[in-house]
Amino acid sequence: MALFVHKYGGTSMGSTERIRNVAKRVAKWARAGHQMVVVPSAMSGETNRLLALAKELTPSQATTAYFRELDMLAATGEQASSALLAIALQAEGMPAVSYTGWQVPVRTDSSYTKARIESIDDKRVRADLDAGKVVIITGFQGIDDEGHITTLGRGGSDTSAVAVAAAMKASECLIYTDVDGVYTTDPRVVPQAKRLKTVSFEEMLEMASLGSKVLQIRSVEFAGKYQVPMRVLSSFTPWDIDINEEAASGTLITFEEDEQMEQAVVSGIAFNRDETKISVLGVPDRPGIAYQILGPVADANIEVDVIIQNISKDGRTDFSFTVNHNDHARTLELLRDKVLPALGAQEVVGDTAICKVSIVGIGMRSHVGVAAKMFRVLSEEGINIQMISTSEIKTSVVIEDKYLELAVRALHKAFDLDQPVA
Amino acid sequence: MALFVHKYGGTSMGSTERIRNVAKRVAKWARAGHQMVVVPSAMSGETNRLLALAKELTPSQATTAYFRELDMLAATGEQASSALLAIALQAEGMPAVSYTGWQVPVRTDSSYTKARIESIDDKRVRADLDAGKVVIITGFQGIDDEGHITTLGRGGSDTSAVAVAAAMKASECLIYTDVDGVYTTDPRVVPQAKRLKTVSFEEMLEMASLGSKVLQIRSVEFAGKYQVPMRVLSSFTPWDIDINEEAASGTLITFEEDEQMEQAVVSGIAFNRDETKISVLGVPDRPGIAYQILGPVADANIEVDVIIQNISKDGRTDFSFTVNHNDHARTLELLRDKVLPALGAQEVVGDTAICKVSIVGIGMRSHVGVAAKMFRVLSEEGINIQMISTSEIKTSVVIEDKYLELAVRALHKAFDLDQPVA
Repeated sequence: MALFVHKYGGTSMGSTERIRNVAKRVAKWARAGHQMVVVPSAMSGETNRLLALAKELTPSQATTAYFRELDMLAATGEQASSALLAIALQAEGMPAVSYTGWQVPVRTDSSYTKARIESIDDKRVRADLDAGKVVIITGFQGIDDEGHITTLGRGGSDTSAVAVAAAMKASECLIYTDVDGVYTTDPRVVPQAKRLKTVSFEEMLEMASLGSKVLQIRSVEFAGKYQVPMRVLSSFTPWDIDINEEAASGTLITFEEDEQMEQAVVSGIAFNRDETKISVLGVPDRPGIAYQILGPVADANIEVDVIIQNISKDGRTDFSFTVNHNDHARTLELLRDKVLPALGAQEVVGDTAICKVSIVGIGMRSHVGVAAKMFRVLSEEGINIQMISTSEIKTSVVIEDKYLELAVRALHKAFDLDQPVA
Repeated sequence: MALFVHKYGGTSMGSTERIRNVAKRVAKWARAGHQMVVVPSAMSGETNRLLALAKELTPSQATTAYFRELDMLAATGEQASSALLAIALQAEGMPAVSYTGWQVPVRTDSSYTKARIESIDDKRVRADLDAGKVVIITGFQGIDDEGHITTLGRGGSDTSAVAVAAAMKASECLIYTDVDGVYTTDPRVVPQAKRLKTVSFEEMLEMASLGSKVLQIRSVEFAGKYQVPMRVLSSFTPWDIDINEEAASGTLITFEEDEQMEQAVVSGIAFNRDETKISVLGVPDRPGIAYQILGPVADANIEVDVIIQNISKDGRTDFSFTVNHNDHARTLELLRDKVLPALGAQEVVGDTAICKVSIVGIGMRSHVGVAAKMFRVLSEEGINIQMISTSEIKTSVVIEDKYLELAVRALHKAFDLDQPVA
């Protein structure tokens, strides 16, 4: 008897018919003798529907009090889908109970709309499992020390699932979604993209952070930290597919570097259209400017990705970084109002017409010249590189967004990732 | 500075535009110097939408586990509308915070889908009020001793509001709804129906229990038990109507019998189409049969209303009672399977084509012949009476449902309730 955590995305929970299919699939696993914990997302469209209502009423100032209410509102989507799944399981003759984040409880910090999980108490869940029940836990949400409802941000149900799997030492966390695994890049951009049977945790982390939408990055971080085996697979296979076949499908995120992985220098090409570039121009070049600029940004809970500081000229320098589109206006306002005057810089400008393209691969550790090859390929396509950022297993470039497809296709081919024509 | 509880029904919360109007109205009261607690229902249609989803997935056996999940599901409607109202108030520049039933907490028993409030802890709410915030409390729901979400049943938000008003010793509990008060009868049936400026608690209790849809009966019981002054008024007056005019509008439910009320013998005609008649025929007439029949019904948590036992003939008698339509099939099944064999009765039959019509009035206490007059009026209209039930301040009859309108109109006229033609 093993313990498995299944996570189902919004599309998989998108109608009562689909919820019934999820129930049948979960019941199959339970009848095979496994203990089952299920973390469902809200029914697709539900979170957007709720947030659209809020938007119509939004106050001009987005205060903490406002974000608290947004979480109160958004958390209802998962509570409803979890209860519906429990009912569907009961209809299949499978005892089931659903719990909200606060009922488990899943404790988080108080960063409304992007809270972080601090601990999960599995006592109640474990008792139900031992009593033969399937336990459903609302994804995406938790409770803070003051008893306020928090949510983990978009895609947070992945994180909930992995955190539960970690807390309960599950055999594997299966993320059921509308794609059948992790690909060398987005097949909508490169039709020749291949599904990876395994991908290392570090590669997955980079791909997720670089905009691959398959998994939420925090879920991968959690999986890495607690060594939770995690599998991405399709929820659109027939529910009565052989359980062993199902258990081996999709893409497994591994923690060992096996030989097969050593062979590929680059495992995938990731890209991200969700970033925007902020440049602070004419900054007097003196120690501490990075902190003076990025300190207030961090204090405002805005995540910064690529950062570059140009070479100084005439005692002044330019400082650029990227943030999420959603934080663009807020970052510009913050810098103009609070940072620019103190800093004595000349100007702050934003550029939303950018994208980030990255090559990712464990193999890059032991191969030289991989980044150089990337730059050559882009140069041959006439693509200008605006920013560069590197790590041990990835190289990212920021380029003008209109070149995104061209860059991804050229790199996918150059690094031998195209699927051989059958 | 007084403390007021406002309760807004689903229609009043039916769109973001209406929620904004509620926010403006509440803000007006708060700015007049009052402490405000608001209990909103779910947006109209939302609870039905959720329950329809559940119905598509419903297991064949409705277990406690199933009802638990129904409450988990249904409670999301009020949580969402409460958060939206808090956001709308914030947008009006009015500090506001919303709490679910479990956050307050509102403690109930564990009778899922029809739980009863046991206690309300007002510490948290009081602290927020003292800090100048409007506090919104989700209606309709609470939490039981085990930490499960419960709901109070349809219309439960009225009860939540009155319970909060009682716990906090509010000056008045204002129930904003889509009608502008309590009428002598339903104006859709009798266009000449008049709005009552005041109605006694006991009359209101009878009217609510007899099917007047203005207030949920449990809310009136609560109001009576804790002497909470309660007013029913329209949420469709302009939000910026003069606050004193608004505070005097609608119908006030009073606890003193004033002279004015003594003058009217009958205050209103109530009716109820939601009941069904169950008859157990050929019951051997011996002590204890009422208990033998109704004991199991009560154990199954089915509420019984009118009860009659016929005169015995040849050692056998017929026993009839009414239950809600929703409990019809369940009651018949229960009696056939469990009661009939043990009782040695001949047959159990149900009749859904009935309705109940009642005359209600404090004045009946001090006037004789009121019931007799009712029977005469019905007889003159050729309406056969199937069951009769009386109390100090009301007389109810069960008649064939096709006579409902005729009976109500005739009684409304006979007891001088028709509005004088202007």
